[in-house]
Amino acid sequence: MDTTRNPYISVDCVIFGFDGDKLQVLLINRDRKSSNGKTGNRLKLPGDLIIKGEPLDESAQRILKEYTGLENIYLKQFNVFDNPERLSNEENLNWLRKSSGVTDIYRVVTIAYYSLIKLDMSGRTDLSIVYDARWYPVEKIPGLIFDHNEILESGLLNLRKGFLTDPLCFELLPTKFTLNQLQKLYEVILGFELDNRNFRKKINRLEYIIPLNERQTGVNHKPARLYVFDREKYNVLKKAHTGFIV
Amino acid sequence: MDTTRNPYISVDCVIFGFDGDKLQVLLINRDRKSSNGKTGNRLKLPGDLIIKGEPLDESAQRILKEYTGLENIYLKQFNVFDNPERLSNEENLNWLRKSSGVTDIYRVVTIAYYSLIKLDMSGRTDLSIVYDARWYPVEKIPGLIFDHNEILESGLLNLRKGFLTDPLCFELLPTKFTLNQLQKLYEVILGFELDNRNFRKKINRLEYIIPLNERQTGVNHKPARLYVFDREKYNVLKKAHTGFIV
Repeated sequence: MDTTRNPYISVDCVIFGFDGDKLQVLLINRDRKSSNGKTGNRLKLPGDLIIKGEPLDESAQRILKEYTGLENIYLKQFNVFDNPERLSNEENLNWLRKSSGVTDIYRVVTIAYYSLIKLDMSGRTDLSIVYDARWYPVEKIPGLIFDHNEILESGLLNLRKGFLTDPLCFELLPTKFTLNQLQKLYEVILGFELDNRNFRKKINRLEYIIPLNERQTGVNHKPARLYVFDREKYNVLKKAHTGFIV
Repeated sequence: MDTTRNPYISVDCVIFGFDGDKLQVLLINRDRKSSNGKTGNRLKLPGDLIIKGEPLDESAQRILKEYTGLENIYLKQFNVFDNPERLSNEENLNWLRKSSGVTDIYRVVTIAYYSLIKLDMSGRTDLSIVYDARWYPVEKIPGLIFDHNEILESGLLNLRKGFLTDPLCFELLPTKFTLNQLQKLYEVILGFELDNRNFRKKINRLEYIIPLNERQTGVNHKPARLYVFDREKYNVLKKAHTGFIV
């Protein structure tokens, strides 16, 4: 397979991980492949120039797989970053030319995706070791190269927006979940606390979040009721729901 | 100014026009520039390869201005079309190479925008004459070259979605409007009729659509009350509003 890279178009991935407690983002060390043995500390989002004949979604899947080993994970294209000056730092540009083997890079438009990973579900804890990739809590993101801080922030905003309008949360919850788990996840993603009583009232009104006659097991507090998400019911109701005016 | 084109990236615009009655789309004749004097009938969306150092939004504005003469019009980036086979029709590909003067085109990823134009407001009726561009009603779109039918359909879906979630309608209405005009616009955009009474009830509940002590003039029926959109109030309420669960 011809893996020649397109010198003008790349894909960058904001990979969010949720461990039941904190929201994190996967960052890689730019210098992991540096030939001089130096281990610098220039961090970036996982990304790559696209292969010439490759659809963008496949590029994103390829990048996700390379850095996490995972496939079939939720991936959403959320924005295009096209500032003609985004590669203007010469040192970083030279690194990109060298590491990609594409010498005629002057400007790259990047298509950004975000993805959601359940960290306790991946069954892998060695992601960071294999590729010099590491998880960073979203409240403590260091300076990244290129415009990657801007891309990350935009990814976070789009994730929040997605949580407010779509049932993304179920990508990160176990199939059977407690209302505490659901509320905690929303609080982590949105970055603020929610009122317990109001939250429960709202959930109880949603016909697509179904209480089971089942409770948690193996917890050292009063086991809470378990719930499931009825996607079919949600899709029917969503179809009937409209919005702004009508 | 160097106007060399980027051989890999283009912008295509779905330009919607509303004349108070119908929703239309601007299409151009691929062969308007053909050197052999033939006037073929291969239609497409207005679009162009981007200029090498040009931000995408500026490309879209440039295209909009070239074909409509208009500036400062609502423009929204809505999707990326990247199917590696989208230029696979050799005859159309050759036309693109020839008309753009860029001979090394093999694959082009296109960033799609839609825009909204009040047709009675533009003060121009000569758009179609100047550039062999013509308005087509959205229900009767002919076959277009490349994947432009797909882009147009996606643009229409995104326009409808925008109308359901954002106050786009006011881009197409006069500052003071009647509820009939507002309802008619929604019916045209969404493609189905709305119940009069329900629509009025809903509007009356929206605090950002303000009834005036003013009525239409110059109509040969009972003049209807005029309304305005209070964008500031809308923004405040929107900030307080969330969505799916919280």
